[in-house]
Amino acid sequence: MRIAHVAPLWESVPPKGYGAVETLVAELTAAQVLDGHEITVFASGDSKVAGNLHGIGTTALLADPRIHEPEVYRMLQLAEVRDRADEFDVIHSHVHSNTGCLAIPVLHGLRTPVVHTVHCFFNDDNAPLFRRFADERYVAISHDQRSRLPELNYLGTIHHGVDLQAFPFGAGADPCPYVVFLGRIRPEKGVHLAITAARLAGVPLKIAGRIKPRDQVYFEQQVRPHVDGEQVSFLGELDFASKTDLLAGAAGTLMTSLIPEPFGLVPIESMACGTPVVSLRTGAAPELVRHGITGYLADTAQELANAIHQLEAIDRAACRAHVASEFSIRRMADGYDTAYRTALYT
Amino acid sequence: MRIAHVAPLWESVPPKGYGAVETLVAELTAAQVLDGHEITVFASGDSKVAGNLHGIGTTALLADPRIHEPEVYRMLQLAEVRDRADEFDVIHSHVHSNTGCLAIPVLHGLRTPVVHTVHCFFNDDNAPLFRRFADERYVAISHDQRSRLPELNYLGTIHHGVDLQAFPFGAGADPCPYVVFLGRIRPEKGVHLAITAARLAGVPLKIAGRIKPRDQVYFEQQVRPHVDGEQVSFLGELDFASKTDLLAGAAGTLMTSLIPEPFGLVPIESMACGTPVVSLRTGAAPELVRHGITGYLADTAQELANAIHQLEAIDRAACRAHVASEFSIRRMADGYDTAYRTALYT
Repeated sequence: MRIAHVAPLWESVPPKGYGAVETLVAELTAAQVLDGHEITVFASGDSKVAGNLHGIGTTALLADPRIHEPEVYRMLQLAEVRDRADEFDVIHSHVHSNTGCLAIPVLHGLRTPVVHTVHCFFNDDNAPLFRRFADERYVAISHDQRSRLPELNYLGTIHHGVDLQAFPFGAGADPCPYVVFLGRIRPEKGVHLAITAARLAGVPLKIAGRIKPRDQVYFEQQVRPHVDGEQVSFLGELDFASKTDLLAGAAGTLMTSLIPEPFGLVPIESMACGTPVVSLRTGAAPELVRHGITGYLADTAQELANAIHQLEAIDRAACRAHVASEFSIRRMADGYDTAYRTALYT
Repeated sequence: MRIAHVAPLWESVPPKGYGAVETLVAELTAAQVLDGHEITVFASGDSKVAGNLHGIGTTALLADPRIHEPEVYRMLQLAEVRDRADEFDVIHSHVHSNTGCLAIPVLHGLRTPVVHTVHCFFNDDNAPLFRRFADERYVAISHDQRSRLPELNYLGTIHHGVDLQAFPFGAGADPCPYVVFLGRIRPEKGVHLAITAARLAGVPLKIAGRIKPRDQVYFEQQVRPHVDGEQVSFLGELDFASKTDLLAGAAGTLMTSLIPEPFGLVPIESMACGTPVVSLRTGAAPELVRHGITGYLADTAQELANAIHQLEAIDRAACRAHVASEFSIRRMADGYDTAYRTALYT
């Protein structure tokens, strides 16, 4: 099949730093090339992809401080996709966060079917746009996400997959157990709640993640005062190797997002390292974590703390096996194969 | 002729506060309705237009703090324009500032001709998009703007017009002369240069305009220290009546933008009030101000100061007559009539 992928331009494919969607595009396309598909990726000009790269600009938008109007580059990208649309059997768009919603109307009406993986939250702003284009072809990334706007034309629900080989299997943190919070440091990620839960449990918490300028006040007021290097440590943003080392050595990973995340790569990556997950029962969490098998679902800070005390009851090998069977790139690639065929033949 | 106007959504049409493009759309469409055209305006749902309103949302984006993704509404607007395209003889888009560039690719390829008035600066970001769509139909708002990207398909250059009746003719500031700076308070507008020039001339300066949060530091460092209520006064943002009173009472208006403005409504409004303009010789300024007749063009702070001393030599009636003959809504409407016919029949 001749497949065009439309990737975000913010980071390269694969990303040099952090970029969940760019990572997924890199891994999905690599699998598709091995499967014999003919792949073209519309991505930033410094990307290194399996298959053919159609570069937009010379570098990722993130890397060029001279760029003040990123939307212009996104529009150029979509214009070039439209121009080449007839060269492909299917076009797979991954650009639905923030201004990425633009891809839906711009790629509307092409003869080549377009499959949109929805990577964003549905919210009051973008729901009218999705409803207006409800007949386009969508893939949800979790059942929870899909249930929040069920009237769209979904080809399927396909969980993200990860490359298990990239994650070290860790035996855990004995004799110095700690739990981890990994993610953007911002109020809706509930870093303060992770601190409360770890403190209630009396277990050290290591926090790692990026702080955007607008979230600096939150960090200073709600996080920094608790950082003492013992009960609570803050490690800043980590590269991939340091991140997986941190996960592999942890007794557990805390997921305390206060908003319904449509998916969560961190819990998958954590379980890939053999590290169970203690998560609030919100968003897609119940689809990712098997309660009592690969971690625990909880509703309050006290329940999170209680679950931290029960982490030893979890078999770390079962966590990794869960990812191997449920969140493999193979499974994701097969899911998209079916979605593409549905788009083409129904 | 059946004409659709695509207006910015940030403000209503006409704007409740400040909105140059929204004002123009209101005045141009009013003239076109009187000329017998059948007008539809795609604008915020709280707009009050001559002709038919196709409302997008219930209020202007500016007025709704719950909106976090304004691009979504702009996309919905363009999608609705596309859906109704066949109902019109010509579509006239006014949405080319910031993410407005999106309109060019989104409205590309319709059977109905689309005329884009370019309201923005050309810059390194958006020039590739304009070049990529060079064959679309453009109207420049000044010769200077057009000269900066001459390879586009321009139907013409049409200066903005104003409704002269809305502006009081003022006799000037005697016996207490002052000059005015009117506009956004930000570094590239050269407020600090206006202060220097007025101080060199020994003439009081009254400053009025909005300060955006990101420009607060500039205001505190470069403007506020000079504000003493005598040599320099700061009046904040003014409503229309206060603004025209300020202009009508001034000896002159200073235009000190350090970047090449593609047009400038303030000098037109100033001359409409009979108030001459002292401007840096940048951007469209030489097309707006007749040197020695309706004001002066200058290259340095000292030249600006010298010109301030020569303001008494300017005939204030000649300033207003210049606007009446060169910047009328009639002239603008006739220009667009020609542009539409060029789009339709060539």
